[in-house]
Amino acid sequence: MSEFTPFKRAAVIGVGLVGGSLALAMRVEKLADKIVGYDLDADVRARAVKLGVVDEAAETFAAAVKNADLVILSAPVGAMASLCKEVNAHAGDGALVIDVGSVKETVAEAAAHVRPGVHFVPCHPVAGTEQSGPEAAFATLFKDRWSILTPLPRTDPAYLAAVERAGALWRGVGANVEMMDAGHHDLALAVTSHLPHLIAFTLVCAADDLENVAAAEIVKYSAGGFRDFTRIAASDPVMWRDVFLNNKAATLEVLGRFTEELALLQRAIRWGDGETLHEAFSRGRSLRRAIVAAGQEMAEPNFGRDKKK
Amino acid sequence: MSEFTPFKRAAVIGVGLVGGSLALAMRVEKLADKIVGYDLDADVRARAVKLGVVDEAAETFAAAVKNADLVILSAPVGAMASLCKEVNAHAGDGALVIDVGSVKETVAEAAAHVRPGVHFVPCHPVAGTEQSGPEAAFATLFKDRWSILTPLPRTDPAYLAAVERAGALWRGVGANVEMMDAGHHDLALAVTSHLPHLIAFTLVCAADDLENVAAAEIVKYSAGGFRDFTRIAASDPVMWRDVFLNNKAATLEVLGRFTEELALLQRAIRWGDGETLHEAFSRGRSLRRAIVAAGQEMAEPNFGRDKKK
Repeated sequence: MSEFTPFKRAAVIGVGLVGGSLALAMRVEKLADKIVGYDLDADVRARAVKLGVVDEAAETFAAAVKNADLVILSAPVGAMASLCKEVNAHAGDGALVIDVGSVKETVAEAAAHVRPGVHFVPCHPVAGTEQSGPEAAFATLFKDRWSILTPLPRTDPAYLAAVERAGALWRGVGANVEMMDAGHHDLALAVTSHLPHLIAFTLVCAADDLENVAAAEIVKYSAGGFRDFTRIAASDPVMWRDVFLNNKAATLEVLGRFTEELALLQRAIRWGDGETLHEAFSRGRSLRRAIVAAGQEMAEPNFGRDKKK
Repeated sequence: MSEFTPFKRAAVIGVGLVGGSLALAMRVEKLADKIVGYDLDADVRARAVKLGVVDEAAETFAAAVKNADLVILSAPVGAMASLCKEVNAHAGDGALVIDVGSVKETVAEAAAHVRPGVHFVPCHPVAGTEQSGPEAAFATLFKDRWSILTPLPRTDPAYLAAVERAGALWRGVGANVEMMDAGHHDLALAVTSHLPHLIAFTLVCAADDLENVAAAEIVKYSAGGFRDFTRIAASDPVMWRDVFLNNKAATLEVLGRFTEELALLQRAIRWGDGETLHEAFSRGRSLRRAIVAAGQEMAEPNFGRDKKK
């Protein structure tokens, strides 16, 4: 990172898990001279300062972004349209603005209204945990994960330089960087992130509603597989509500594929078709091996939960 | 375990993950004077001896169970009917026979054909990993997990004593013991284990089939949630085929609940009904907290995959 000129003042809007982790990582890697945090919740602002996640907190959005050469929007996707208006009103010319939202087409639509002097580069770091708030933030969250950039359709040199700088920022906090079209992002992430979350939330609700199996039994026998799903089903409900409201088409498309596949296996169960079940169940191991080989998952069985001996 | 009289000779039929782990745990806890392994696959037998999972291997089922006072059937549920015939032919009077299968009603049906002098106590330790074979076995697999016993409808003192002894065996390897009706077991486990596996297998197949998202992208962005599902989708396909072929009614019942819930959320996404989504998504955290509090899951975020700092 020797060639990276640190930002003078970074404004982090939303200092929860992702915004807070990015702030922490930038502090560790010395990517900004000063990091100012802002959050709608005054208590969260105070905690972020106390925890050392940011150098200081601002009382308003305007005060946070004033003179900032980097603005990081880390809020639920549903808030992006109104945040872009705030950016337009308060960010200085030449500022780089990034977001960290899980959906990119609606962010691109909102970002199109930001004036050209401000360089908005939509980003999505594919990293997170099921926890929320500044207490959940940690500096290595992005290490070896992928951050996807979906630049706006602008070809002016100032914007291209801003895209370059956004990429360098992500690499600076340990992430790999990929560029793609916002629409393709939304489809790819519908598969690898949005559908898995929807399925996990659904399974938890379905289990919770089954009146002839007690909640205590679900807890006791959860090591049979159910507990795995509760991790992502414990994720932030507001963030995920906004993901589905803003990635409707791609989610419904991949959900259609999922329910077709499920119908096929349901039919195989009903008719005792062991061959179809065996064929389908045999596809999991190679994909998991590939994910482990790519450094995106641990090799230890059971996520290392049960230590050998 | 001071009151536990060790078995003289335990025969472990099937020395993979579960049978092998039980053999290892019994050796560590000194619950049997001698442990003999048998497996259909001669190579697996040899590896189990070499790995120290069993004291020795027998060449046939009959040789393994001869003079055994404990027989552990650790094979896919579909093999239980034929294994019960073998037990009937070769096990000695007074022997305790247990299985470790994930489905219990069909095991009870098979066990009903075993002669009364042999005491078959159907068992299901709710523990495992996504790996298979004797190399995957480890002695602490059952520690703090639940083992469910679904005794046959017999009230003779010899059988009741055998049930008692089976429970003591599981407690001896670190498990908690619960007794229930086989039908209730199959429904409860359909929720906490069988449906989660079916859903995970389905999701992996659906992702694998999506031609406009590359396999490489699924791997790269799997940290968005998908990777969690690949763990249980990497489980043994034969074992899981047999689970669904043998627990059809309960699986289809809970699958019906799941698809109803999914349809509700699908409709909410289509119509932009954020309230329904938020309400559903808010139910996950408390259930996960309960599972962590019950010692069935780790508290660390992300299954401890991403270490803080």
